[in-house]
Amino acid sequence: MSLLIKNATIVTQNDQRELIDGDILIEGNKIIQIAKNIDAKADIVIDATGKIAIPGLVNTHTHIAMTVFRGYGEDLPLHEWLEKKIWPIEAKQTPEDAGIAAQLAFCEMIRSGTTSFAEMCIHDAKSLFESAEKAGIRGIIAQGILDLGDTSKIPELLNKAKTASEYQTELVHASIAPHAPYTCSEELLIKTKELAKNLKYQIHVSETRKEVFDILKKTGKYPYEYLDSIGLMDANSIFVHGGWLTKKEILLAGKRKITVSHCPISNLKLATGGIAQITELDAAGANVSLGTDSAASNNSLNMFETMKMASLLQKHHYWKADAIPTQKLVDFATRNGAKAIGFDNGSIEKGKLADIVLLERGPNLCPEHDLIANLVYSAGPQNVTDVIIDGKIVMQNKKILTLDEKAAIEKAAELSTEIKNR
Amino acid sequence: MSLLIKNATIVTQNDQRELIDGDILIEGNKIIQIAKNIDAKADIVIDATGKIAIPGLVNTHTHIAMTVFRGYGEDLPLHEWLEKKIWPIEAKQTPEDAGIAAQLAFCEMIRSGTTSFAEMCIHDAKSLFESAEKAGIRGIIAQGILDLGDTSKIPELLNKAKTASEYQTELVHASIAPHAPYTCSEELLIKTKELAKNLKYQIHVSETRKEVFDILKKTGKYPYEYLDSIGLMDANSIFVHGGWLTKKEILLAGKRKITVSHCPISNLKLATGGIAQITELDAAGANVSLGTDSAASNNSLNMFETMKMASLLQKHHYWKADAIPTQKLVDFATRNGAKAIGFDNGSIEKGKLADIVLLERGPNLCPEHDLIANLVYSAGPQNVTDVIIDGKIVMQNKKILTLDEKAAIEKAAELSTEIKNR
Repeated sequence: MSLLIKNATIVTQNDQRELIDGDILIEGNKIIQIAKNIDAKADIVIDATGKIAIPGLVNTHTHIAMTVFRGYGEDLPLHEWLEKKIWPIEAKQTPEDAGIAAQLAFCEMIRSGTTSFAEMCIHDAKSLFESAEKAGIRGIIAQGILDLGDTSKIPELLNKAKTASEYQTELVHASIAPHAPYTCSEELLIKTKELAKNLKYQIHVSETRKEVFDILKKTGKYPYEYLDSIGLMDANSIFVHGGWLTKKEILLAGKRKITVSHCPISNLKLATGGIAQITELDAAGANVSLGTDSAASNNSLNMFETMKMASLLQKHHYWKADAIPTQKLVDFATRNGAKAIGFDNGSIEKGKLADIVLLERGPNLCPEHDLIANLVYSAGPQNVTDVIIDGKIVMQNKKILTLDEKAAIEKAAELSTEIKNR
Repeated sequence: MSLLIKNATIVTQNDQRELIDGDILIEGNKIIQIAKNIDAKADIVIDATGKIAIPGLVNTHTHIAMTVFRGYGEDLPLHEWLEKKIWPIEAKQTPEDAGIAAQLAFCEMIRSGTTSFAEMCIHDAKSLFESAEKAGIRGIIAQGILDLGDTSKIPELLNKAKTASEYQTELVHASIAPHAPYTCSEELLIKTKELAKNLKYQIHVSETRKEVFDILKKTGKYPYEYLDSIGLMDANSIFVHGGWLTKKEILLAGKRKITVSHCPISNLKLATGGIAQITELDAAGANVSLGTDSAASNNSLNMFETMKMASLLQKHHYWKADAIPTQKLVDFATRNGAKAIGFDNGSIEKGKLADIVLLERGPNLCPEHDLIANLVYSAGPQNVTDVIIDGKIVMQNKKILTLDEKAAIEKAAELSTEIKNR
């Protein structure tokens, strides 16, 4: 099948970061030509006159099943929120519930221009893979595990972690995700990394100040140094958060070329206090990407908002209005996100996977002194009209084609009431 | 004319903060009844089944003419941005240009649920009043002035400040706005306050650390104490920013019942470093409200985003996930905003001015464990479908009725290119 997008302003995100006014020709799941006035017959032609085409955004940290806990237990101190609200309700959630939450989450992602995600799941991941396949969205999903130091559980946990590989599809790949160095034994960390081989390896690291000091006390090393000493840092590693890093750890992240997935909104909402120094991490050579974290601690899955917040927090942290070039934020949310999850998407270039989002120019995107700044600071879900993933149209003129959005919302709403009474 | 809104979930923002499922009857510009199944004949009936009705949001700090400078001069240090970019281009802007910018700004405000604003204008304010009247939007506009210490200019400046009163309409009232204590002589500050009488008095105060120390050095007092000593602090005063306040100044703000208009996104974008302690200001009795500041330093006029950011920054500032109750943010953006600008709107109650926004429930607002949290952390312009101001429908089913939006965008785009070549 071929698809021709006509007359867009194309934010290519290629190596030269070119902005091109023209057409995009897609054959199957790949971009095969970008040029002015492409004279080709295509099965589907989209008139994008007046619209902006961007690579689909990549959300590199989510807990999709928690989407049905959006707004549950607000206005509580962090530990009370976790212990009295989130953990008890999560314990009641079934894998089927996770599938319902996933359909809701994918509707929200698509509507806000996100075409790929990295997921750490606590339930059986099957229903998430199935929902993702239905939605036609791209990503990686890991069956998250933790042993809380009880190494007798390791064989069972490794079997659980492996199941993701059985479910994987062409669009959604399996990943491995031990929860965090403070909830997993060293043995589990090492064995999961062996199990992962070339799979993407997701782990929460240095989200809070407390865990940094606990690990320092236990191992004599700061978290990144400790995890490096047991072989966990390489280009397949996605270290989530990184809000409390030493300068030495930042250099180490760069040297090992890990991905640091920064989740600014969740960090602020949970009041973790630290701000990932993404400017320095990027300069050191780490692959900086962006995530929303779950809708329970954000409370949205809006990557435009995350780009804006990530930029503003660097300016605030360094008291420096030019702390980070605006272009970097778009890079983090597209090219770097693609690298994090290991797909050949993240830019609009010949030969790349066709994950493309079209934006209409509302009053909030006018004038256009700086299109990149408009994307980072002014754009939002209200501008997203069409979403193409893997060469297929998943949203057209603001209508989601792959999922029954109304039913997804209704089912999630029902579940959110019913689960509290279980 | 009468208007009946049927079957909404009403976020009343009344004293009890009631949430009511029911109808709203409007007669002329006022709400006359709120109840289930109102049996009345109305000229216009809006079916709001499945929708949420909120009081229109109040943006208490804007520089509307700067909307055409959105994204102009990004990635520069603050002083270079001001001196090389913003001030030179502002100097080229005519009052007519300001009117073009205003139409763009009002389209953006309406689309994002803002029904009232407080404006400090540097140009002749006439075109802003005219554009506001056309848009059918509510607010206050001041002809901003400053003398940079040259007191010989005062008579001329006071005449300029007075002009706003000539232009005012039923919906848009005149206000007085000396720029800041560091750009205005003491004589100008005192004389503008005398001139203001019962008008709202807007002034930038304690935005940056530098100005606090400059005023301390010059007067021996911190800014709020200094301004209080010359009679500038009362319930008509809107002190904008307040990012760098002492505990004593916070108590003084409460005692004098001034409004502190917090502009979190602008503060971060300009890297002013300070975060207004709105939790403490509110507790002290000050009237805390929220503003976007201009689209040149935000770069949007989205008050949903501002509520979210204001909440997150309190959590971050105090390292406390429950630093501020979510409800407070909606109060700041509605009831307190109304108080700041001096209109009898800001809540959906019998007898109040009918400024109402309808929101559709997209996937980003599901589930609804906490409707207030959804408004603060999850809602956005994509949810806004209908906007009623002063009893009149200004946007219906996402179509703006009072302004030609397409023309407003085109004219603003043209101006933004043309003005650079002047």
